Amino acid sequence: MAAPGEAPGEALRAVLRPSGALPAEALPVRGYDFSGGADHAALLRSFRTTGFQATSFAQAVAEIRRMIAAKLEPLSAEQRERAAMAGPRPPSGCTVFLGFTSNLVDVLVTTAGGVEEDLIKCLAPTYIGDFHLRGRDLRENGINRIGNLLVPNDNYCKFEDWLMPILERMVDEQDTQGVRWTPSRMIARLGKEINNPESICYWAQKNNIPVLSPALTDGSLGDMIFFHSYKRPGLVLDIVEDLRLINTQAIFARKTGMIILGGGLVKHHIANANLMRNGADFSVYVNTAQEFDGSDSGARPDEAVSWGKIRVDATPVKVYADASLVFPLLVAETFAQSADAFPVPAGTPQD
Amino acid sequence: MAAPGEAPGEALRAVLRPSGALPAEALPVRGYDFSGGADHAALLRSFRTTGFQATSFAQAVAEIRRMIAAKLEPLSAEQRERAAMAGPRPPSGCTVFLGFTSNLVDVLVTTAGGVEEDLIKCLAPTYIGDFHLRGRDLRENGINRIGNLLVPNDNYCKFEDWLMPILERMVDEQDTQGVRWTPSRMIARLGKEINNPESICYWAQKNNIPVLSPALTDGSLGDMIFFHSYKRPGLVLDIVEDLRLINTQAIFARKTGMIILGGGLVKHHIANANLMRNGADFSVYVNTAQEFDGSDSGARPDEAVSWGKIRVDATPVKVYADASLVFPLLVAETFAQSADAFPVPAGTPQD
Amino acid sequence: MAAPGEAPGEALRAVLRPSGALPAEALPVRGYDFSGGADHAALLRSFRTTGFQATSFAQAVAEIRRMIAAKLEPLSAEQRERAAMAGPRPPSGCTVFLGFTSNLVDVLVTTAGGVEEDLIKCLAPTYIGDFHLRGRDLRENGINRIGNLLVPNDNYCKFEDWLMPILERMVDEQDTQGVRWTPSRMIARLGKEINNPESICYWAQKNNIPVLSPALTDGSLGDMIFFHSYKRPGLVLDIVEDLRLINTQAIFARKTGMIILGGGLVKHHIANANLMRNGADFSVYVNTAQEFDGSDSGARPDEAVSWGKIRVDATPVKVYADASLVFPLLVAETFAQSADAFPVPAGTPQD
Amino acid sequence: MAAPGEAPGEALRAVLRPSGALPAEALPVRGYDFSGGADHAALLRSFRTTGFQATSFAQAVAEIRRMIAAKLEPLSAEQRERAAMAGPRPPSGCTVFLGFTSNLVDVLVTTAGGVEEDLIKCLAPTYIGDFHLRGRDLRENGINRIGNLLVPNDNYCKFEDWLMPILERMVDEQDTQGVRWTPSRMIARLGKEINNPESICYWAQKNNIPVLSPALTDGSLGDMIFFHSYKRPGLVLDIVEDLRLINTQAIFARKTGMIILGGGLVKHHIANANLMRNGADFSVYVNTAQEFDGSDSGARPDEAVSWGKIRVDATPVKVYADASLVFPLLVAETFAQSADAFPVPAGTPQD
Repeated sequence: MAAPGEAPGEALRAVLRPSGALPAEALPVRGYDFSGGADHAALLRSFRTTGFQATSFAQAVAEIRRMIAAKLEPLSAEQRERAAMAGPRPPSGCTVFLGFTSNLVDVLVTTAGGVEEDLIKCLAPTYIGDFHLRGRDLRENGINRIGNLLVPNDNYCKFEDWLMPILERMVDEQDTQGVRWTPSRMIARLGKEINNPESICYWAQKNNIPVLSPALTDGSLGDMIFFHSYKRPGLVLDIVEDLRLINTQAIFARKTGMIILGGGLVKHHIANANLMRNGADFSVYVNTAQEFDGSDSGARPDEAVSWGKIRVDATPVKVYADASLVFPLLVAETFAQSADAFPVPAGTPQD
Repeated sequence: MAAPGEAPGEALRAVLRPSGALPAEALPVRGYDFSGGADHAALLRSFRTTGFQATSFAQAVAEIRRMIAAKLEPLSAEQRERAAMAGPRPPSGCTVFLGFTSNLVDVLVTTAGGVEEDLIKCLAPTYIGDFHLRGRDLRENGINRIGNLLVPNDNYCKFEDWLMPILERMVDEQDTQGVRWTPSRMIARLGKEINNPESICYWAQKNNIPVLSPALTDGSLGDMIFFHSYKRPGLVLDIVEDLRLINTQAIFARKTGMIILGGGLVKHHIANANLMRNGADFSVYVNTAQEFDGSDSGARPDEAVSWGKIRVDATPVKVYADASLVFPLLVAETFAQSADAFPVPAGTPQD
Repeated sequence: MAAPGEAPGEALRAVLRPSGALPAEALPVRGYDFSGGADHAALLRSFRTTGFQATSFAQAVAEIRRMIAAKLEPLSAEQRERAAMAGPRPPSGCTVFLGFTSNLVDVLVTTAGGVEEDLIKCLAPTYIGDFHLRGRDLRENGINRIGNLLVPNDNYCKFEDWLMPILERMVDEQDTQGVRWTPSRMIARLGKEINNPESICYWAQKNNIPVLSPALTDGSLGDMIFFHSYKRPGLVLDIVEDLRLINTQAIFARKTGMIILGGGLVKHHIANANLMRNGADFSVYVNTAQEFDGSDSGARPDEAVSWGKIRVDATPVKVYADASLVFPLLVAETFAQSADAFPVPAGTPQD
Repeated sequence: MAAPGEAPGEALRAVLRPSGALPAEALPVRGYDFSGGADHAALLRSFRTTGFQATSFAQAVAEIRRMIAAKLEPLSAEQRERAAMAGPRPPSGCTVFLGFTSNLVDVLVTTAGGVEEDLIKCLAPTYIGDFHLRGRDLRENGINRIGNLLVPNDNYCKFEDWLMPILERMVDEQDTQGVRWTPSRMIARLGKEINNPESICYWAQKNNIPVLSPALTDGSLGDMIFFHSYKRPGLVLDIVEDLRLINTQAIFARKTGMIILGGGLVKHHIANANLMRNGADFSVYVNTAQEFDGSDSGARPDEAVSWGKIRVDATPVKVYADASLVFPLLVAETFAQSADAFPVPAGTPQD
């Protein structure tokens, strides 16, 4: 016990415990110095030593740059041959999978909503609204809310007008030419039909990038397929062939990178395909979900390591943030800086 | 300005602003009184006036009880006829949709993982582990982590042994008898084959409860289908017919209730089907997702009102919590108390 | 590469990797069996093997039971002597710290809001409302919202009427008797003055449980102290003496347990005091905060281990849930079951 | 009911409901066009129409620009006189309160940790680490973790060496000159003593910016005060005088703006002071907390409107993100662009 006038020794020793060596690679924390003005590029570089999610952002930039560097490595003849088994995309040193749930790369995985919003935006705009507009008032006005976005229901009416004749031709082709429709084949067809450089689906089919979306019926596209089925029953959308497609992309790739925005089906589907190659080489997750409820959406990359979906020696990064804030900045710091290596066709927006 | 010795009047008026009338239905806050001991049933009833998510829990109990009461209302002859158009389930006053992502009711919607875990648990157990076991160590041991659960990879090997002959017979039936496989038809078949009262799929097929899972290839089932397709190509899983099935359940129901555990595909798929009837009558969401990133997972019920997926005059409830904590308690306070009205076959576990 | 008719070997090996041994203590997952009806006590016991946060709940129950068992262990003469140095509470084998931010134990730490709500509830009720009532409408009506609770502003007017004469007497006692006010001393006085068995502050002072709240001026109490200071300046509230008080509780305890509901100041303050003894022996956190933004609120118990605030060999538990849902159930499964060992004075509500 | 070959009319009407007029101010959604390369400034401007939290970011930029514009408005003689009652800061058209919990402006509110980290960084660096380093290993090495940052315990030993003589002088001044110490007065003294342009406390005291931190004893500063109190008891830190200081800043301001990073005490303390003026004129919150558990940390700005802490006609913004990602970008888009109006002293880092 402490002598009078002395702090308790146990407390002193607990608080003032001496420290050992830090990890060798540990950088001192240092934020951006605004005294020279706001240089955005330098500011984003300073995120490396800013801490918390700013550091995670910088780690994600580094991981995507590793994907790009691997993609640009020259291939041996044998490597080219194997890569060709994955399909018509130009062979490269790293196959990049991108997943997103609402709106770049070798393989795209998205939701039904991701596909239909990409098409509908070519027909009519979506608007900025507010998270707290009342559902009842909006419904009475035929306006649908997605977070702080507003989609007039007329957009879906225009979508129906555009889609119905295409569905009719698709059933014709199935019945007369034996076309076997799959979600990815349907998405490619819709990308061709929309014929609009605003559309990701348009550019994907033009560049032989498969767009996978196994639950393609879950949304407005499904609503239209449902209504059309009364006039003209019989359309079949097969999900087994698409499964072979995505798994093949992973198996025959030299290396793979995953960039996954959001959670749900999209995150699991890309990771599961990468199990087929004993794990992705490079991985970046951007989402706001947490692991405590055991959801795959919130699972950290280390959970995917346990499954063999990410390699045990990889350097995966999760950025905990809304992709709307982070993804444009990630693109600015990565793909946009390798623009010469990956020439973008003239007139392409948003990708 | 304030005279000496007087607090500033503006500040006083701002702080001590008099209050007007409260909403008529506002109940005083009152927690549980433990002085009489811990009576769980009374404790859970006291959640109504405990505030925060305890109050949301009590509101969810009330909403599910409204579903049950509507289900038990007698039907007119016309109502019976219309209900029959939805399929073989006994007609009732309220069709209840349940969605879950990992492991009661008229229509079930789940993920591929939800189906395969339900089957695999009949072959081998899953274990309680910890959220922070290292992925590398687990992978080296062939142990997969799902949150704080551990699944030995041998479970999937057993699943393969069990599933392969069934897949073989399914392709046979497709090729020789013209069976058109859909995810729901495949799940019913697996439920029959597992023939084990531990399985939800077993009970669902026995009671003509369709189990919808449009992205059924996204998981271990998909892995097995993929491997099997090398030996025996040609299996087709059509998602259009299942779309008709789920939408029909919603359209021909007298009333509908939605109980949705978790987010992602499952949440959207049930809500989208209910758009076909201009909205569900009763709704309970249990999840931990937030709306700020615009995700459907995190969307509050009021967003579904704007889409016509929940009726404008409904009383939907969202409980912000992990379903593992809340769902057993919700069942205890609702379905378990109407057990006489909905007799559970002897030996049924977990539902 | 795969021969025709054969799945790619690498993929097969990755997916069907054999598993090694599980941790020896791993229990199989098993949910509650409702076929025998809903027995709440059995249901809550089944949480141990239910997974996700249900398992965390069961682990928290076990940790609190360890606190209670340690508290009941007989003390040696030397242990009694040391424990007596912490102050007037009866010596025991484990000093339990409870922190909460809005409304049991040896040491309580709470916010200014936690104290004033405990007192105000004896003067007028708070009401259940809704998270989405409009701020503008409420302000015009003088009704304040706390999540889904509503507090009429008149409650604060009543609080002012009750508090002002007490503040006057406190300054008198400071000026004439040399009383040195600290937050804990003021809270004990208010507990005595409210003289109402509904109040936690009342019971705390009656049982010599210190209630610490270093930022006691941050809330309505502060507003009243501010207004009173115009009439009668000079009240001093010293936070250094309270710092000695809380640290002393930790230093002279045989063992300590921490039960911390919520985050912020309360969580840090209890943990920091336990650094003085090189870490708490038992710890339960219940909150919804996440670690990714580097906040102390969201920090997992393992971060506190790095600081020496939790012992390296301890078994701390964090339950990710709103305390309104979880804490009543935790009490039911722990303290309420040791009621004979810790007799509660007749008429005590809520604790 | 539908005729054969016709989709059910109710379903068609529900899905294809025509839409009414959008809010007049609704902007079409439009992301950044990377085809011209990555222009960071243009990219950040495009966030206005990007949706979700990107839009919230743009709204926060607009709100802070409104604060700056109000600050630069010329004052009448009467306005100058009133503003002077708030203290020694130069009078201006808008008093800006900044709250942060770990590291520009008229009034600063922070935690004990915010103050001590600002001082300690002048003595020794903090390092970038990882969220998942093991607590036990770190403790054995005397390294403390804060999220993904690492603080060697030696930093606190250096802090002790620096602080102890200052504490000694503070008690001397209290005993011999009658200095009444408050947290803000102690922080100003520490800022002067550290005499280092890396420190926010240094610049704050140099510019008469009060730094409020009512629970200043809750952290390492408190540990040192505790140990010092054994050698030299008697230091008094009074929180009542600081309460008068912060409330006075709000009452006598012409307009006020609040920029609050994180939650807890800091968020509540600034908002509560603004209740004294019937609400802040401009408000920006940046945090990751959610409202569902009823915490003040997660409360949306609209809850503060109900209390009179934000004016009913204000345009407050909450950005749901880690401040480490968002705050540097907010500064780049706001204060850094008004650098001529608010000249930063040469050599100032980080503010």
